[in-house]
Amino acid sequence: MKSIDRARAFTLFGVLYLTANAAIAQQADPLPSWNDGASKSAIIAFVESVTTEGSAGFVRPAERIAVFDNDGTLWAEQPVYFQGLFAIDRIKKLAPEHPEWETTEPYKSAIAGDMKGLMATGKEGLLKVIAASHANITADKFAASVREWLRTARHPQTGKPYAQMVYRPMRELLDYLRSKGFKTFIVSGGGIDFMRVFAERVYGVPPEQVIGSTIDAEFEMRDGVPTILKTGKLVLVDDNVGKPVGIYRHIGRRPIFAAGNSDGDLQMLQYTTIPRSADDKAPSFGLIVHHTDADREWAYDRDSHIGKLDKALDEAPQRGWTVVDMKADWKTVFAQ
Amino acid sequence: MKSIDRARAFTLFGVLYLTANAAIAQQADPLPSWNDGASKSAIIAFVESVTTEGSAGFVRPAERIAVFDNDGTLWAEQPVYFQGLFAIDRIKKLAPEHPEWETTEPYKSAIAGDMKGLMATGKEGLLKVIAASHANITADKFAASVREWLRTARHPQTGKPYAQMVYRPMRELLDYLRSKGFKTFIVSGGGIDFMRVFAERVYGVPPEQVIGSTIDAEFEMRDGVPTILKTGKLVLVDDNVGKPVGIYRHIGRRPIFAAGNSDGDLQMLQYTTIPRSADDKAPSFGLIVHHTDADREWAYDRDSHIGKLDKALDEAPQRGWTVVDMKADWKTVFAQ
Repeated sequence: MKSIDRARAFTLFGVLYLTANAAIAQQADPLPSWNDGASKSAIIAFVESVTTEGSAGFVRPAERIAVFDNDGTLWAEQPVYFQGLFAIDRIKKLAPEHPEWETTEPYKSAIAGDMKGLMATGKEGLLKVIAASHANITADKFAASVREWLRTARHPQTGKPYAQMVYRPMRELLDYLRSKGFKTFIVSGGGIDFMRVFAERVYGVPPEQVIGSTIDAEFEMRDGVPTILKTGKLVLVDDNVGKPVGIYRHIGRRPIFAAGNSDGDLQMLQYTTIPRSADDKAPSFGLIVHHTDADREWAYDRDSHIGKLDKALDEAPQRGWTVVDMKADWKTVFAQ
Repeated sequence: MKSIDRARAFTLFGVLYLTANAAIAQQADPLPSWNDGASKSAIIAFVESVTTEGSAGFVRPAERIAVFDNDGTLWAEQPVYFQGLFAIDRIKKLAPEHPEWETTEPYKSAIAGDMKGLMATGKEGLLKVIAASHANITADKFAASVREWLRTARHPQTGKPYAQMVYRPMRELLDYLRSKGFKTFIVSGGGIDFMRVFAERVYGVPPEQVIGSTIDAEFEMRDGVPTILKTGKLVLVDDNVGKPVGIYRHIGRRPIFAAGNSDGDLQMLQYTTIPRSADDKAPSFGLIVHHTDADREWAYDRDSHIGKLDKALDEAPQRGWTVVDMKADWKTVFAQ
């Protein structure tokens, strides 16, 4: 009798356990760092709709492609794009090997940390900064330089390591979408090889799902070792009209969810959400992170030199895009 | 007592069921179209080793990247790359809109189906053929033209639709790897947008895991509709040294399994399998499909104008690459 009771008890326990689990899963808040409100409700309603079999808007898992901008959408971007700060730090580090930089622009301004002087060197100057910090280096050595920088560098205003300036609510959104069968991609104006160093650890996005501005590379056998060398030629500027091109090149199908924070994301939002024809009823979701919180983060939009949000903000109501008010919608801002 | 017996019976049944399932899974042949022999054993031993937790060669799922060439590796490529036949058919179809083509090369030869004449127009001629058949067209219209061609065109010698000239043993290998947690990619000299039309249906490889030669694209709003336009500029020739570059650009990490059939795959095989240093003990597998079966498919290698296999065949023993002898190793060649 004892063993029979045990079998019965196990069966009962099993049923209770499964039931309790299902109930918890249904009730648990998938976005705990988001305040209840229109933004959170709209996200959850969309995700439920496209993932509920039999619903009119059901989307099969293979088509559940979600694309996220990085700077200003997944992590902060003030006072200047973090990759720019990496480039300057890298030039400072390499300066001893290039004594001529002390008297030559744009290196001189970069070494002095003179952002105004650096900006004054224009597009040509910035391309030289990118070349000096990102090119003529093997892929492995470049990745090592980014890893080292992420480990040691601190944000000039918050004093945090950059990987801690990720937005917790957006990290939750990435996790939530993945738990519902979405494949999440980063589609950023930032450098593809720069982001790939931390995207898997920090966002749970593997390198093959990171799309960004790209400089060319070459393959060679170097002393018998297969080597990728990063060269300076730009092959994709993954910003503005370049974002749908990057999506087409790397993903090859239209996303159903896009999140951005600036006019650089306008075309990605259009590409994701605007119907192809009168018959096109494919569901889609557009999200804009609006930086409204000068206390916990920064407040900026139409007049900002970084992350300018103007046209996309005007177009949002007409397109039905959800504009996230960082101050009102987010309980917590940073990951840590 | 009756219900208690039932509980006990269910428990017993459950244990039996799970045990039987595990036994079937272990015994079932994952590669039924492969003859028993060194090639099949080597593949299975490698896959078992990298997927068995606790084994010295264990590789975590995220790093299980497998790359496959397409032409001559996943489907046939004789008497000429199938995409070349698509291009010629496309030019024939467009000819009525371009009366001047009847007297102008390379179109004249293409329309006449004169391969020799077409080849004689050289690289410049071939680029014009690609431009006329693949560029200055929206992405959606191009995909529709490939779909229509795959539905209607027949191979000149076998009379089969091209999608039926896929190698069944390689399709099984793709499935086997995926069942073991691998992510399978195509890395081909063929056009990325051409292959993406059928790769998901025919190989189970989604568009975002297809890498190939790439021409540029532009984004524009056309009559209020977001539109991708394919332009003629080449941004990646995904062959030879271009294959590791394509892998780096699209995947961003080193594969652990590579399969090819020609010298165009040599650098991909090197990139995948050659250690980076004396300490680099990362497991890897290189596979070459050797076309040795003139009866069921074609027999060619060192002197072929298509799929020339010479240097990679010489290098195989030294690198430990598995050379698949199509005639001896494959029970069945084509999928259908």
